[in-house]
Amino acid sequence: MSESVGNNNQEVNIKKRARKGYKSVGKQSIAFKNPPYIIAASSIAGKKEGEGPLGEHFDQVYEDPMVGKNNWEEAESELLRIAAQTVLNKAELKNTDIGYLIGGDLLGQLIATSFGIAELQIPTFGVYGACSTMGEAMVLAAMLVDGEYAKRIIALTSSHFAGAEKQFRFPLDYGTQRPYSASWTVTGSGAVIIGDYKDSKKKDGEPDIVITGATTGKIIDYGIKDSNNMGAAMAPAAFETIKQNLDDFNIKPDYYDKIITGDLGYVGKKILIELLNGKDYDISNQHMDCGIEIFNQDTQDTHAGGSGCGCAAITFTGYILKMLRERVWKRVLFVPTGALLSQTSFNEGNNIPGIAHAVMVEARL
Amino acid sequence: MSESVGNNNQEVNIKKRARKGYKSVGKQSIAFKNPPYIIAASSIAGKKEGEGPLGEHFDQVYEDPMVGKNNWEEAESELLRIAAQTVLNKAELKNTDIGYLIGGDLLGQLIATSFGIAELQIPTFGVYGACSTMGEAMVLAAMLVDGEYAKRIIALTSSHFAGAEKQFRFPLDYGTQRPYSASWTVTGSGAVIIGDYKDSKKKDGEPDIVITGATTGKIIDYGIKDSNNMGAAMAPAAFETIKQNLDDFNIKPDYYDKIITGDLGYVGKKILIELLNGKDYDISNQHMDCGIEIFNQDTQDTHAGGSGCGCAAITFTGYILKMLRERVWKRVLFVPTGALLSQTSFNEGNNIPGIAHAVMVEARL
Repeated sequence: MSESVGNNNQEVNIKKRARKGYKSVGKQSIAFKNPPYIIAASSIAGKKEGEGPLGEHFDQVYEDPMVGKNNWEEAESELLRIAAQTVLNKAELKNTDIGYLIGGDLLGQLIATSFGIAELQIPTFGVYGACSTMGEAMVLAAMLVDGEYAKRIIALTSSHFAGAEKQFRFPLDYGTQRPYSASWTVTGSGAVIIGDYKDSKKKDGEPDIVITGATTGKIIDYGIKDSNNMGAAMAPAAFETIKQNLDDFNIKPDYYDKIITGDLGYVGKKILIELLNGKDYDISNQHMDCGIEIFNQDTQDTHAGGSGCGCAAITFTGYILKMLRERVWKRVLFVPTGALLSQTSFNEGNNIPGIAHAVMVEARL
Repeated sequence: MSESVGNNNQEVNIKKRARKGYKSVGKQSIAFKNPPYIIAASSIAGKKEGEGPLGEHFDQVYEDPMVGKNNWEEAESELLRIAAQTVLNKAELKNTDIGYLIGGDLLGQLIATSFGIAELQIPTFGVYGACSTMGEAMVLAAMLVDGEYAKRIIALTSSHFAGAEKQFRFPLDYGTQRPYSASWTVTGSGAVIIGDYKDSKKKDGEPDIVITGATTGKIIDYGIKDSNNMGAAMAPAAFETIKQNLDDFNIKPDYYDKIITGDLGYVGKKILIELLNGKDYDISNQHMDCGIEIFNQDTQDTHAGGSGCGCAAITFTGYILKMLRERVWKRVLFVPTGALLSQTSFNEGNNIPGIAHAVMVEARL
């Protein structure tokens, strides 16, 4: 049963739209007739993330940045492998119980994902939306479950601080100074299993966690060129996607208890709030950013905040889902944000466009 | 209406499975209850591809490898942009008529795609399956159309010889000798529009082109490490996916008029046929490989054959669809094949696993 959060008129609007018989809503969104369930989740974090404000919420924290492997890329694959195995263990499922695996990561040609999940032998769709990848994977997984192509799908992603710095910025050995607008790529991997049935492992009194709808992002380019200011590059994409979600469903920001961006950080958050204010949408009471939550800016020297596919992923699977299960929040809009650059596109002087995908998640008793 | 190609028992088997009410078939496949239509396609090729055996079939051939741009990456983006615009023009549709764009390319962080399609402002899912990307994009697009999330979706991909060599192998300026097992990355981009209605632009007497089912690939690693022998790296994945498709639907190879792999080339083709023979599946009468068809091995110095996301894409959109529209073939299994490596994974001594996605395409009167 759907909870009435926000005002009742908003609730009615959504029901009316869903009743029309189309899964598409407005210009860019969809609503699920039978919202898929998030039946299990896993969050595997690195040392710094474990020491941060959300540290207690993660399933496992690895002190060793190499995770026992030979290089950073293999370390990231190992985090992702552990996240996939952990979510299967928590759901008491085997690899053969999973119809598809949908995932990706920041590394060129998605090597963290392909080497991390190969042993599972699950039919795989590799996806890439930079740090919005968890949102993209969850939207597609929910569609494929709702569309009856699979009973259960794993959506997952990962990132690793050292692998990302090596790939996108400067070798760590240079000891380059980081500007205050720079973010700190999260080391970690998060996975969810999205299924067409209720989580049978949930405790008495716990709500079902369902995905009720989604707004898939477009590529948004406001002309930012600074790879040490990802927040500014991604904020316009978050703005466009959040605004479109509110418009498509004809709802106000207080329809949600939280509107949670992936990794805008302090710089991007300010831009997002201002862009929305400029169009008369005030989300300042609802907005939260995973990149801001995951590190302590005062003590952890992380400047603008956390970033990377893993940032939104482990904040969602470790912390946000817990708040939903405890019904501290009943409805959230989860909006992972991605900056679409490569070392090559940056070196060739290209802009850094952004993309953001919004997933509507509810706790239902 | 479905045509009866192959023997009638095979036809009955599929119908019975589809009637059960599930979209999943066997272990790893799906069958569409209302097969989505391929309502338009575009094929944009480079000079060498235009000079090859399939040259006459492509919509446009660009003599300039830079396509008027400043570097190879921008050239590839431009090919992809032209492919997307051309498929819209051929279908007489606008960007706002398209629900989603699903695409990707070989370049790190999919920059060819994100810069190529940004101006279209269509909600976008970036996907990566190396040279299997066209298969992955088409499977997802067909699912999302059949699942009623969008009326029309563009699936597209691209590759560029010079950009791929720069990224995966040696700078062209070195003039490195290419072993005979090496393939030649195709310069080109192909796009299809998959929709839930018949192509209104088709000529009298032309059949509908529909996607009836799919088999999504797993990551298959037989331990190949040579990035100059992609055929050997991908053949095991093609083997597993084709075998699974035949098993899941309980059909024999002659159910299809053609079983068409993406870019195994001469080396990979031999391995594929042998692997299947070892399990008592003989596809030698049906098998065709886009990488073998697209270049003339004797005159074009392309060694093992063509490769790259663009190879399967423009062979499908330019040539294979034409053969289906003319009903030279009535049923094909289109199996783009991908080798999952990056410069980093190769330099770190990793294996090159493969993946292959199979799309069942039919011409129906």
